Amino acid sequence: MKLVENSLGRLVPTEMDGRKLTPFQGAFADPLAKGHRAAPPVPQSHPLHEGGEKKVLKNIKQAIKKTGLKDGMTISFHHHLRNGDYVVDMVVDACAEMGIKDLTLAPTALFPCHEPLIEHIKSGVVRNIQGSMNGPVGKFVSYGNMPTCAILRTHGGRVRAIEDGDLHIDVAFIAAPCADDYGNANGVYGPSACGPLAYGAIDAQYADKVVVVTDNLVRYPCLPISIPSTDVDYVVEVDKIGDPNLIISGTTRITRSPARLYIANIAAKFIKESPYYRDGMSFQTGAGGISLAVTKQLGDYMREDGIRAAFINGGITQFAVELFHEGIVEKLLDGQVFDTKAIASFRDDLWHCETPMTMYANIHSKGCLVNKQ
Amino acid sequence: MKLVENSLGRLVPTEMDGRKLTPFQGAFADPLAKGHRAAPPVPQSHPLHEGGEKKVLKNIKQAIKKTGLKDGMTISFHHHLRNGDYVVDMVVDACAEMGIKDLTLAPTALFPCHEPLIEHIKSGVVRNIQGSMNGPVGKFVSYGNMPTCAILRTHGGRVRAIEDGDLHIDVAFIAAPCADDYGNANGVYGPSACGPLAYGAIDAQYADKVVVVTDNLVRYPCLPISIPSTDVDYVVEVDKIGDPNLIISGTTRITRSPARLYIANIAAKFIKESPYYRDGMSFQTGAGGISLAVTKQLGDYMREDGIRAAFINGGITQFAVELFHEGIVEKLLDGQVFDTKAIASFRDDLWHCETPMTMYANIHSKGCLVNKQ
Repeated sequence: MKLVENSLGRLVPTEMDGRKLTPFQGAFADPLAKGHRAAPPVPQSHPLHEGGEKKVLKNIKQAIKKTGLKDGMTISFHHHLRNGDYVVDMVVDACAEMGIKDLTLAPTALFPCHEPLIEHIKSGVVRNIQGSMNGPVGKFVSYGNMPTCAILRTHGGRVRAIEDGDLHIDVAFIAAPCADDYGNANGVYGPSACGPLAYGAIDAQYADKVVVVTDNLVRYPCLPISIPSTDVDYVVEVDKIGDPNLIISGTTRITRSPARLYIANIAAKFIKESPYYRDGMSFQTGAGGISLAVTKQLGDYMREDGIRAAFINGGITQFAVELFHEGIVEKLLDGQVFDTKAIASFRDDLWHCETPMTMYANIHSKGCLVNKQ
Repeated sequence: MKLVENSLGRLVPTEMDGRKLTPFQGAFADPLAKGHRAAPPVPQSHPLHEGGEKKVLKNIKQAIKKTGLKDGMTISFHHHLRNGDYVVDMVVDACAEMGIKDLTLAPTALFPCHEPLIEHIKSGVVRNIQGSMNGPVGKFVSYGNMPTCAILRTHGGRVRAIEDGDLHIDVAFIAAPCADDYGNANGVYGPSACGPLAYGAIDAQYADKVVVVTDNLVRYPCLPISIPSTDVDYVVEVDKIGDPNLIISGTTRITRSPARLYIANIAAKFIKESPYYRDGMSFQTGAGGISLAVTKQLGDYMREDGIRAAFINGGITQFAVELFHEGIVEKLLDGQVFDTKAIASFRDDLWHCETPMTMYANIHSKGCLVNKQ
């Protein structure tokens, strides 16, 4: 393996599994910023005229056939259903039963519920994973049990890789809590409601073929539209896309641990003492017991000091929604939500808006919101 | 000029101004459906770190310089400000003053207010126009006074041409009634409010450089987002982007002419007698005295017969909004709105949603809404 020194003096490989690697060249260097974006194939509209093809298919296997999914291809998934997701296993199981192998999975994230993938890695159905891996799959892969090197990217980095053509998706499977027969989809209605579908937007735009998988087919047009029919080839209705109790994250209660509360307390105080604590500020806290405690305490400080934030950048929780409804925070920008109150606010509040991942943190966009925090 | 026979037996040229033409081959033939979409250059995010470039520029001329706009390039505009638009003239005047010539204009539509363009065609600043031309410019060009052949495309056809690379836009100028300093923009707040910015969305996605022009710069983040900061290079604040009285269309009153009312009456009756008149139906009527009368009468029929429409496809008017608020129409899909009540509904109602032109009628999308009407 050939090694070169990067700008931090660390030796790094120049190639891995046949993939050329670019050494780190500094925080604001951008050696990949050249050339043009990936260009998806020109699709044709489904006119639904006499004899025209309908988008709704009978099941996942029919979708696999229709999309031409074959050995060695890359398939993608979003993780809005978190540890309650049924769709990843459903699709990979079907691929295995159909004898497809050497797949690359490109999920935005995997969770403990995806443990069955381990058997598919062992049997050769899955050859590579490019995406976050929480739980057993992550552990299995970390111990060197996958034949290829896993690639973990940031949320924004994944969008960049797709847009720039470094990560080509052959077929994207988009779990949708609500969809119509033409593929318009959102995450705010139905038994598996999860909020935005922001992680899946880039997959829908750039994958060669796009399949929406839903357990809640509604009359056209499904509104609001997170994933547009213009990006969708097929729609599959299944019994359940996930387990509602596990879709809602387990980390949405404020911690009661004194040690953690202490950490939250000094974190909130640190923010209050920093120059960023001012009218028009913004912050991002997400879920997890400590983060929630910080959100709440920061809100208390702001109420006391008469300071109003311009926005919170999600993941959004009920504690963020409470500050928003109280007027302490003016707007909510949201890539994912973590509890039912946050889903309701995302669904109903005009200034609680979805931010696709390119808007969140794509360095090769013309300006993403992390630059404005 | 070489002529060939198209599928309707009509002789048509195979080339015009050096541009290869494809003869019509039938309603559902699609000879252009091949290859890949256009691939815009990979942009770099504006990180706004120490010394980083800000997006807000002083004026239009600075934007012309920064974008590298030169002789022979193509610049584009949307027509949401209709006959009240100031931005087209503002930009082309500035180009003329800077000595730029041989421009191709690619507006979605021009109106009588754009009459000053005639002088710019005569003087060689403008060499070609690709877009609808209502009023004096249309008349001038129709009489053969432009050195090249104008190209008129449908709303959906224009999107297809841009996406497929047949119409390359060098710089898009996007008039925005509301925008922030990072380029997020909408059309629902401010003195020049016009509703959606749906015509400009494709320009923002595919143009090499994108300039938002606004008379209402608000604190980041500007919500809702019709044009995202991720597509925008520069923002220019000007005194006024348009005349509010002329942005609102003049054709938003129901006709009082007996002849026109008679036409409306038989049109509405015809719809009522057709097999398309049923629960879950949809329709598109737009503005204009007769259309408005049809909308109203169709609503009366539906109320009487207990029939509910799934959606109206915009342009949306107050008469459509009234049916929607009454529950006779379930949802509104909207590419443009024609009056202040419709703007308010578009701004405030969750099921009154923006449809970019690719969603409206792009034959090379994976399914647009005109197929579902």
